[in-house]
Amino acid sequence: MYAVEVREHIMIAHSFRGELFGPAQAVHGATFVVDVAFFREDLTQDGVVVDIGRAGDALKRALAPLNYRNLDELPQFAGRNTTTEFLARHIFDAMAKAAREGALGPGGDGLARIRVTLHESHVARAWYEGAVADA
Amino acid sequence: MYAVEVREHIMIAHSFRGELFGPAQAVHGATFVVDVAFFREDLTQDGVVVDIGRAGDALKRALAPLNYRNLDELPQFAGRNTTTEFLARHIFDAMAKAAREGALGPGGDGLARIRVTLHESHVARAWYEGAVADA
Amino acid sequence: MYAVEVREHIMIAHSFRGELFGPAQAVHGATFVVDVAFFREDLTQDGVVVDIGRAGDALKRALAPLNYRNLDELPQFAGRNTTTEFLARHIFDAMAKAAREGALGPGGDGLARIRVTLHESHVARAWYEGAVADA
Amino acid sequence: MYAVEVREHIMIAHSFRGELFGPAQAVHGATFVVDVAFFREDLTQDGVVVDIGRAGDALKRALAPLNYRNLDELPQFAGRNTTTEFLARHIFDAMAKAAREGALGPGGDGLARIRVTLHESHVARAWYEGAVADA
Amino acid sequence: MYAVEVREHIMIAHSFRGELFGPAQAVHGATFVVDVAFFREDLTQDGVVVDIGRAGDALKRALAPLNYRNLDELPQFAGRNTTTEFLARHIFDAMAKAAREGALGPGGDGLARIRVTLHESHVARAWYEGAVADA
Amino acid sequence: MYAVEVREHIMIAHSFRGELFGPAQAVHGATFVVDVAFFREDLTQDGVVVDIGRAGDALKRALAPLNYRNLDELPQFAGRNTTTEFLARHIFDAMAKAAREGALGPGGDGLARIRVTLHESHVARAWYEGAVADA
Repeated sequence: MYAVEVREHIMIAHSFRGELFGPAQAVHGATFVVDVAFFREDLTQDGVVVDIGRAGDALKRALAPLNYRNLDELPQFAGRNTTTEFLARHIFDAMAKAAREGALGPGGDGLARIRVTLHESHVARAWYEGAVADA
Repeated sequence: MYAVEVREHIMIAHSFRGELFGPAQAVHGATFVVDVAFFREDLTQDGVVVDIGRAGDALKRALAPLNYRNLDELPQFAGRNTTTEFLARHIFDAMAKAAREGALGPGGDGLARIRVTLHESHVARAWYEGAVADA
Repeated sequence: MYAVEVREHIMIAHSFRGELFGPAQAVHGATFVVDVAFFREDLTQDGVVVDIGRAGDALKRALAPLNYRNLDELPQFAGRNTTTEFLARHIFDAMAKAAREGALGPGGDGLARIRVTLHESHVARAWYEGAVADA
Repeated sequence: MYAVEVREHIMIAHSFRGELFGPAQAVHGATFVVDVAFFREDLTQDGVVVDIGRAGDALKRALAPLNYRNLDELPQFAGRNTTTEFLARHIFDAMAKAAREGALGPGGDGLARIRVTLHESHVARAWYEGAVADA
Repeated sequence: MYAVEVREHIMIAHSFRGELFGPAQAVHGATFVVDVAFFREDLTQDGVVVDIGRAGDALKRALAPLNYRNLDELPQFAGRNTTTEFLARHIFDAMAKAAREGALGPGGDGLARIRVTLHESHVARAWYEGAVADA
Repeated sequence: MYAVEVREHIMIAHSFRGELFGPAQAVHGATFVVDVAFFREDLTQDGVVVDIGRAGDALKRALAPLNYRNLDELPQFAGRNTTTEFLARHIFDAMAKAAREGALGPGGDGLARIRVTLHESHVARAWYEGAVADA
């Protein structure tokens, strides 16, 4: 299996509900360095997994509604804890949809899997990996 | 599949037996930067893979008997080469046991897999990944 | 000149005032990975720059009032933009004060300089470096 | 599953054919930091996945024909785009062949899989992973 | 002294003249991850060292003539070895000129020093640091 | 000022004397990732700070007596705590001596300063920087 991975980042505020989260129940924030890996069984005629220019643009579009925002105020996240692992899945869903809709350009149609990793510090990260067809 | 990963480190001395190891047959040492990844099919009601506070505490407990020690002197490793890959499995076993015994708190009971990675330098690392049930 | 450097991190929310900041005028957040370097001309009798255990504790005390907080709500920052470079200086001041007051333990009294670096993402960081006596 | 991973790097020039590549159609270059991971179900009698000394030597031999070269001029790549993902597979094939031929020394004969990752910058990388038997 | 640092990268081809360079006398290439640090004695009224948006734009303009090029073919480098340290100085000169000409926006006029670091691999890097006035 | 920096690593065992060191008074060990930076006011005729091939060889020679050793047993360290900062100075002295004796090849004779950084984990490092003439 081949894979290519590209990196972006977002800077957000949020808070969590539940005793589990201790001091993180207060409004705080995070820089998430976001890696998106695209998996494909074979290379395209051009010799790539996917057009990383267009894939990178799709990633920027997926992240734009979150970047420099307080996630507690976004309707799409109402009633949810926007944990690192939850956001990894949220971004995965957006990227898998982009792949299925042809928004990733050449190679995007044959992608098998996508993995979205969010690094929240030098000591913690989370990811979600799934088949493009399952999202 | 969701995953969260946390990082700690230990500083140990040891030596290896076998011509394969060349100069590493002498007593030397290593800093191991230890990443433990917890895999789960679904998130808990709180929206997490596992309580990383309690998981981190379990990791500290697993590492404490090794940290600042000469591993050649520990009875649990008698007659074994404490290679990076061997230690990855050793820590995996401790973490999988903690998961099965409920020591990881909420989410710990539904973990599918665990992966333990030990970085021994900027150019070498080793890991062990397995199902929690198999350990 | 000798130096030792230790690392911690904080996760905060804040917003900025001024057109310069564009979308960062909204409430957002950041993970700051914080490196504090202690500089000394000579080593102590123990062969160290400073007791990194006690220096690390002092750093944790300096960061605690900021961690998991919305900095916009903290009275000590009223009317100020809590930019990365501003916060580097804020933490420098706390660490230099700790050094002058003897809170860093052996070696802390002879420190010449301190540098505080805040990494806000994989592509941006800021720091403040100054003499301990000047803070 | 156990794994060990070692790191090397190469510095090459090349160009790409196809509109997809935009400005990268011109002769340019890259540093590829190359990680090769070796996977094995069980450890050898010595307690290792593979002899990393000999595995590292095999990797150096696989990289030598590429290092400090303009890949456009190498006959083995005539008519091909030497993309990061293509090169990951090329190096995988060489390492899998080395494993099958016994060139990796003790442990090399029982390797299940190999993964070759090429980091081309701080924001992009590619890899190929496959079974040793399939190469 | 305050500093902020931003990161970009370029991918270039080149060759070196001189026996010193061994195999690097052939046409090869490099990814240079480029960090530019801006130093200032005091913060601006906005609480920053420099407008990193405009500073980042100036850096992109300085790098554009080099990116995806064979440096051997650029007239500005005729007869020169475009070593990592030479390129660090080249980019420094462009950034210092931008600062003196007011192209960095607010804060750019009061910059004391600039440092340009080029990482050429995981094991080697070079930099040039100088006063803005001296360039 | 120009600089180039190269990286190596060593894996050693040692112990410390003094209550300050807590559990590190026992025999333990460390991986030290060693960065050596060479500073020079101007580039050589070849356009470099120093011949990094020969400088790297000199670094390997300086590290060889330490690598894969228990530092407690080496006569040159008798009665000393081989702390990270102490070792940074030890390696600095060896590299500055090499520079003064012409062992670094072209460019080595005009070096102004050397800095030796030892990374002992992902959260701690130490360094020594000094003039070549002072060592």
